[in-house]
This record gives sequence, C-alpha cells and structure tokens, in this order.
Amino acid sequence: MQQFTPAEWQSWERLYRANFINSLTGFKSASLIGTINAQGIPNLGMFSSIVHIGSDPALIGYVNRPVAAAPHTLANIKANGLYTVNHIHPSFLDKAHQTSAKYPDEVNEFKEVGLTEEYIQGIHVPFVKESLIKYVLSLKEILPILLNNTFLVIGQLEQVLIDPSLQPSIDGFLHLDQVGSICSNGLDAYYNTILINRFAYAKPGSIA
Amino acid sequence: MQQFTPAEWQSWERLYRANFINSLTGFKSASLIGTINAQGIPNLGMFSSIVHIGSDPALIGYVNRPVAAAPHTLANIKANGLYTVNHIHPSFLDKAHQTSAKYPDEVNEFKEVGLTEEYIQGIHVPFVKESLIKYVLSLKEILPILLNNTFLVIGQLEQVLIDPSLQPSIDGFLHLDQVGSICSNGLDAYYNTILINRFAYAKPGSIA
Repeated sequence: MQQFTPAEWQSWERLYRANFINSLTGFKSASLIGTINAQGIPNLGMFSSIVHIGSDPALIGYVNRPVAAAPHTLANIKANGLYTVNHIHPSFLDKAHQTSAKYPDEVNEFKEVGLTEEYIQGIHVPFVKESLIKYVLSLKEILPILLNNTFLVIGQLEQVLIDPSLQPSIDGFLHLDQVGSICSNGLDAYYNTILINRFAYAKPGSIA
Repeated sequence: MQQFTPAEWQSWERLYRANFINSLTGFKSASLIGTINAQGIPNLGMFSSIVHIGSDPALIGYVNRPVAAAPHTLANIKANGLYTVNHIHPSFLDKAHQTSAKYPDEVNEFKEVGLTEEYIQGIHVPFVKESLIKYVLSLKEILPILLNNTFLVIGQLEQVLIDPSLQPSIDGFLHLDQVGSICSNGLDAYYNTILINRFAYAKPGSIA
C-alpha cells in the first residue's frame, strides 16, 4: 500500500491537496441549487455535498463553504427561506459546471450559462427547467462548523418534481441512472452510473 | 412533470417513503467504517453519508442515525477517538452490504461477513484488508442535529492507504473508477461509474 501522512499532504501545493482530499471520499451527488436574492435576481450554483439527513421528516443537508468564499446561495436561502435542488444530466453538464465560476451577486447564472428558469405556483424560487428531477427545500437550520467556518445547511422537503419518463419503482425507489442523473467526484470530474444490483434488507446470518 | 407533496409522502407506507426520499438526493459514497469497542471487539458498518467538509485542514463528516437505531459505531468512535473509512469494490459488495444487518455489540462483523481485519503500526482500529482505498480519521466534533436526533460526526484525516495499482493523477486527483470503488443510492442500490469528463476550472465568461 502507498501510505500518505498529514505532513505529506500539508507540504503539497494547494490545488494538488484539494484534488487529492476531495476525491478520496468518493462519489457524490452534484446538483444545482437555485435561489433568489432580495432584489429578485436568481442565483444558480453547483453543490456536491448534498447529504440525506432523514426520511420522516424528510430532511436534506448540504455543506456551504465559508461565507467569504461562497456568499450568495447562503444569503439568499436566509433571506427567502426556500431553495431548489436540481439534478444534472449529461445534456447540460457543461452549463452546470460553468455555474461554479465566481459571478458577482447581480449576475443571473441561468442567463449567463444558458439554462432556463422555471417557476411553479406558490414557490418563489427558480427550478432548472432542463432538470428531470428536482425538489424544493425550506430552511430549517444552519449548523455552523467552527472547525473550518463552513455550515451544514438543513432543509425540509416541500415539493418534488419528476419527469414522467421516470416512474418510481414498486417500492418507491428512483432509478436515477434511467434519466442519466450524473454523479461527481473531486472538484471537476463527472460520471455516468451503471447499476450493479439492489440488495435485500440485510439480517444477521443471511449471507450464507 | 409528476408533482409530489408532503401530504402525499406522509401517507405512504414507511419503506416506500424511505426508498423514495433516500434515492431522491442522488448518488453517494457507500463506505465501510471500522471501529473497535472498549473491550477490543471490532465493529464494521456500512455508511452512505460521507461528506467532504474541507481540504485544509482535511475534515470529513458522516451522518450517524439516532443512537437507538445505530449505537455501536458512534459509541466506539467516542471511546477510541480513531476510526477507519474503507472503499467498497464489487468483489466484496455482498459482504459489505451484509454489515448493515443489526448485529449485537459483541459480534465482530469482519468475521461474521467474511472480511479481513488489517492493522497498521500506531493505529489501533481495523481497516478492511480487501479495500483498495482507505483512511483513518480522528474524531474532532459531534454536532447534534436536533431536528431528528441524528449527528454530524466530523473527523480529521490522519492517514491514507492506497493500493499501488492506483497512482494519483499529476494534479492529485484519484480516478476511483479505475479501482472500481462503488457508489450507491437509496438504501440498497450499488453502481459502477463511467467517467464522462473532467472540466477546467470555471471562470466567468469562459463557456462561450
């Protein structure tokens, strides 16, 4: 085995370390978070730290970087209370990735990268029209992570939109690979997925 | 679009709701967390909520379910301070999945499912020998999520072991697909990945 120690990665150039540490933890769900600021200007940003917190109540978290590095999404969520999360598919992956550029607050990333705002009744934040699976969260809690000035932002699920081409399985499961929802790794790598298998609920003794 | 509302998923049967909500948020990194209890008995469990918190310092989190539902890993981490995270590959996916069965605290899941404990000098928690990418975390903080009695458990990276067959790219990135690290979705679905592309660092205006 190749063995790496803290002294080693602390000596690395910043981007080399970021690539290594970010990719080490494995594949993740890259999604576009849609918000709107107090002046009514939409914001769209790529986030790859979406994490399932619980199913009942349905709570979903993401990690927001320090405010100085990533101010707009978090400020908009605080101001508005609602935000959308939109799956990314290969057909607009280049546009989705481009939202990670540092645009000023007055720039509407939808227009800038060429994606389409979509609104539904009663929800005053934009979805990504091109996305085949998307949902709305209402802010429930912002947990500061003092270790590195990041935040765990937790929202409650308020609404789900799924393209008619994807029907939930008989047991509720969504076969995301069938609509090409991508996954990501590290800072800039994106992947398609191929189902290996679904497994039965594990009980002690049942592997034999 | 098919539209789903809270009233709808709250009316669903528990497992249908869990499958739907869990799979909605997308692909994730399923890994095996290795710990050891105060009596020296190893514990191995599958976790699919690993989340990158930061690269410098290198901080990695996971969400632990309520203590009543998932007591052993968290208790062991608190008692020992160190824990390992081990990537899963298709060759032992069935064994990895089986660790999610509810074994009593005195059962060593390594032996029960047929995986091999591995120890390195100075680190008194077990790795999974069969895993090609694995790392050690030291507990830094346990953030209670009072909304549903879960916990964000944050560790600092102390040691990384990578099989010689995987060399970091010239910029530090780890091509996990080359060693078949799996990703997961929902409660029980596992996937291989196929690289679509790595993208250049996004700057305003560069999409044209």
